[in-house]
Amino acid sequence: MRGFFYFYLMNRAQLFEQIKKKQSYLCVGLDADMEKIPRHLLKTDDPIFEFNKQIIDATREFAVAYKPNVAFYESLGATGWESLQKTVDYIPSECLSIADAKRGDIGNTSTLYARAFFKNMDFDAITVAPYMGEDSVKPFLAFEGKWVILLAHTSNPGSEDFQLLETRSGKFIYEEVIFAGQRWATPDQMMFVVGATHEEKIDSIRRLAPDHFFLLPGVGAQGANLEVVSKEGMNQQCGMIINSARAIIYASTKEDFAEAARKEANKLQQSMSRLLDEYCR
Amino acid sequence: MRGFFYFYLMNRAQLFEQIKKKQSYLCVGLDADMEKIPRHLLKTDDPIFEFNKQIIDATREFAVAYKPNVAFYESLGATGWESLQKTVDYIPSECLSIADAKRGDIGNTSTLYARAFFKNMDFDAITVAPYMGEDSVKPFLAFEGKWVILLAHTSNPGSEDFQLLETRSGKFIYEEVIFAGQRWATPDQMMFVVGATHEEKIDSIRRLAPDHFFLLPGVGAQGANLEVVSKEGMNQQCGMIINSARAIIYASTKEDFAEAARKEANKLQQSMSRLLDEYCR
Repeated sequence: MRGFFYFYLMNRAQLFEQIKKKQSYLCVGLDADMEKIPRHLLKTDDPIFEFNKQIIDATREFAVAYKPNVAFYESLGATGWESLQKTVDYIPSECLSIADAKRGDIGNTSTLYARAFFKNMDFDAITVAPYMGEDSVKPFLAFEGKWVILLAHTSNPGSEDFQLLETRSGKFIYEEVIFAGQRWATPDQMMFVVGATHEEKIDSIRRLAPDHFFLLPGVGAQGANLEVVSKEGMNQQCGMIINSARAIIYASTKEDFAEAARKEANKLQQSMSRLLDEYCR
Repeated sequence: MRGFFYFYLMNRAQLFEQIKKKQSYLCVGLDADMEKIPRHLLKTDDPIFEFNKQIIDATREFAVAYKPNVAFYESLGATGWESLQKTVDYIPSECLSIADAKRGDIGNTSTLYARAFFKNMDFDAITVAPYMGEDSVKPFLAFEGKWVILLAHTSNPGSEDFQLLETRSGKFIYEEVIFAGQRWATPDQMMFVVGATHEEKIDSIRRLAPDHFFLLPGVGAQGANLEVVSKEGMNQQCGMIINSARAIIYASTKEDFAEAARKEANKLQQSMSRLLDEYCR
């Protein structure tokens, strides 16, 4: 579907327009796993793409973004990359397509990763790991109209190991990443990954970066509370995209999986509609 | 070639054996770039693999490891992954095969990356980014006999941005990573990436991790001094692998590229032989 909108790029204002129109800030995580998708799809030519296609068709009304985690495709070798390409081509142009790749390398190498995801595959956004610093992030920013989503405070238990180390000036490392990210890029080029599981910190992170969008994983299977997270993190342009993967795409693992996914996405969208009314202002 | 040694895994003692036998601790970086490889190869079916194959044949006598940087292959899409698979299959079994992938994600996702590189592609080792902490690294350690090479202090300018932040206890972040890495894994499972460009710090990093192997990029195009780095970083089992990519593989970009690569690798190996005599004891 994206082929018809070759020059379509989604800026921050357009993203907020979609959020208002759909009354949703839902991102559906396309973590398609050969061992978990419904058995009847295994008979098709490309089960992973067929699964994603039906999930996208069923949830498009309620979602503003789709995020394939690249590991799921990479673990399938060359055919996985073909399924990923077909999937990004199929993501509707009014939705942000996010490659959850967590890449990052020295400058000339990051340029190659950027080319792979932004140019060859035409994703709108990519998640980037900050550990290697500015020259590992900048090459992704050179692609005009594309988004870097920088890992700041991730949702997993290991996020405590280094991200919560305190520097001499009394800042957490994830705060240093958020400060640096704002030096490197505008809120129109960069978002931050903030785990929804850190409910108690979202308010302070919002104060650090008042204008940036956050991508929040952790609602659903990882247990974070949508209401609390939205209340603490929303800004006047919504400023957040909440990712849910397993709770939607594996709501059923039978033939009715797409319908079940639609119901889960719809439920989240209805809550989001109410939360937008209440906190986005 | 690896097919004949399906159960061949390279442990630390065997790596040191190879280093003594070849009198070399050279890793050749297989950063094959379609725009830089000799023009005459473009006529072959798989120019990237053909290039790597000839580089490997020419340098095998002088190298103990080969390290394809995955970005170069990923930027070519599905065909790039096929070239990468053929390349790792071709790396001689007496050499360590390192996927320079800098991966790292939440636990269940890191497992998929580990499966992609260790099981599907049968690499001996992979570089891993530490930012997401323990549960992002541990899944790679679950593959017995395989190596995790954790980014500690990288060679690029951006290594200053976060890796050199000082914590309240007066440690650099890269030192915290090295401490954590040693809690998570033995010197038989883990190495650390230490940029050879940080010549003045290598001695103190060696004291932090006396027994672990270091993978040192930055000699060659990035300008680090082999002599200084070896003197400061070597331990009784050598404990270091020095990577050189561009200076070897693009020593000539004409039809004599393999012969030119051989000469450069040989030059490095001769220096290394002398440095092993002097400092490995």
